[in-house]
Amino acid sequence: MSKSFEISAPDAQSPIGIFDSGVGGLTVYRALHNRLPNERFVYLGDTARVPYGTKSLATVERYAIENSQFLASRGIKLLVVACNTASALALPKIRAQIGIDVVGVIGPGARKAVEVTRRAANPRIAVIATEATVASNAYADSIMRAAKKTEVMQTACPLFVPLAEENWTHEPETRSIAEKYLNKIIEFAPNALVLGCTHYPILRDVIQQTVGKGVTLIDSGEATAEEVEKLLQKKGLFNAETLSYSHERSLCDDLDHFFVTDAADRFARVAERFLGAQPSKLEAVEVFGVDKLEKQKRF
Amino acid sequence: MSKSFEISAPDAQSPIGIFDSGVGGLTVYRALHNRLPNERFVYLGDTARVPYGTKSLATVERYAIENSQFLASRGIKLLVVACNTASALALPKIRAQIGIDVVGVIGPGARKAVEVTRRAANPRIAVIATEATVASNAYADSIMRAAKKTEVMQTACPLFVPLAEENWTHEPETRSIAEKYLNKIIEFAPNALVLGCTHYPILRDVIQQTVGKGVTLIDSGEATAEEVEKLLQKKGLFNAETLSYSHERSLCDDLDHFFVTDAADRFARVAERFLGAQPSKLEAVEVFGVDKLEKQKRF
Repeated sequence: MSKSFEISAPDAQSPIGIFDSGVGGLTVYRALHNRLPNERFVYLGDTARVPYGTKSLATVERYAIENSQFLASRGIKLLVVACNTASALALPKIRAQIGIDVVGVIGPGARKAVEVTRRAANPRIAVIATEATVASNAYADSIMRAAKKTEVMQTACPLFVPLAEENWTHEPETRSIAEKYLNKIIEFAPNALVLGCTHYPILRDVIQQTVGKGVTLIDSGEATAEEVEKLLQKKGLFNAETLSYSHERSLCDDLDHFFVTDAADRFARVAERFLGAQPSKLEAVEVFGVDKLEKQKRF
Repeated sequence: MSKSFEISAPDAQSPIGIFDSGVGGLTVYRALHNRLPNERFVYLGDTARVPYGTKSLATVERYAIENSQFLASRGIKLLVVACNTASALALPKIRAQIGIDVVGVIGPGARKAVEVTRRAANPRIAVIATEATVASNAYADSIMRAAKKTEVMQTACPLFVPLAEENWTHEPETRSIAEKYLNKIIEFAPNALVLGCTHYPILRDVIQQTVGKGVTLIDSGEATAEEVEKLLQKKGLFNAETLSYSHERSLCDDLDHFFVTDAADRFARVAERFLGAQPSKLEAVEVFGVDKLEKQKRF
């Protein structure tokens, strides 16, 4: 049996696939949903193996490929890798395995930051992300490819993820921790600050207050939604038709399908905190490598 | 081929196995090492799949069994499940699969708390732990089995784990977060407070200062080491001989063998923060279910 999936070619009506290591990618889903209200989404949160940010290259690659194959088997027209760590480490491997367009969050975030700082005399861009994303240097590399003369500073902010999941968005402790983490970035005085982890937009207000109004915050999810829109138009896969539904389209409605690899109840709870709504369609699944997946499909 | 492992029966010289979802179990290793200087240890940190505290029963059971089988295959004489979540959820399944004695951290922690509060007129015990451990009610059940009239209060403190891993042991933010989490416990005025997550002993000072000197802190790892000592003596497996070594025995020396399922460099870094030393013998391994493990051994 061949390794490719025997699925009819996707068209404009096919859904967009999104995967993340867990709940953080819901901020990317929100950005895509807001920008592309005619599209349907299939979201996979790999909650059985979250977090990716402290794991090795080989492990992140393996998990990312398994997730991508699961979504490819659902007939998606385009794959968004919402996880910054997987975008930083695994895009080439995913592209080599999957026969559809793949968009990560790092390239769009980096390019958006370059775009908004283009007019500055000495452009300076700061990036906050997980340990693994910072260590990969993916944002810095991507920024330097787009604009060589830019100065870049990167900082890991590990506590921001649990603070976002606790929904401590305005607590004084969160502000104090933000001041500690962003201290050097404030001295660096960047023109733009990239929120290089999908959880960080949840803490957007406290981050903006800490670095000051003069710094433009870049939400990589929003930048990604812009690039996805352009790519769909270029490929003739943009859905121009309004989706047929009786009520107004809303986040987490039954046109979007959510899958998690574990603990669906916790995912639903955090989705409520992040999006103000729980997924209408939420399923727990096991994500396998290509061989087992083909077996699943055959029987 | 039968399902049991064909390994010679363990004796007093065999090592003690310890597994945890990651680095937290190092505090249990330290407690065992301090109490039992004549013993050797084999430690497995399942860093590829950490954390367990937010995962489902079925998933935690599966991971715990795979870890236990890996350690059983190393010829250990006794297994310590250092992970509170795995102790809360998976002990019966592990015991059904493994032909050696298994000690979790919850029973010993609960019994120690009952012991130290025995003379109080109205014994009150507080427990802090992960979401999964609190939800399992394992500490409360175990305390009630040992002393029916005890009042128990449980609270999850999710931010304590990343704070410990950041080594923010004395930062004002940690103190402030501790005050927030322990607020209701202070009102409850317990006689004892169980540190029901292996990371929490790292924050012992700030927790003690927050609840006040009148509350006895119970380190489940220390309580477990006491019970392990008694069990080894009862079973005739206690190693009375001083281990032969040229230098004085110390934490992480080459008599103890550490395995991780991912990111060994990060494990070594956090071990340094927790124990003041990096493991002399540290290996990254893949942990499989019993079938694959037998295959590995055969070829």
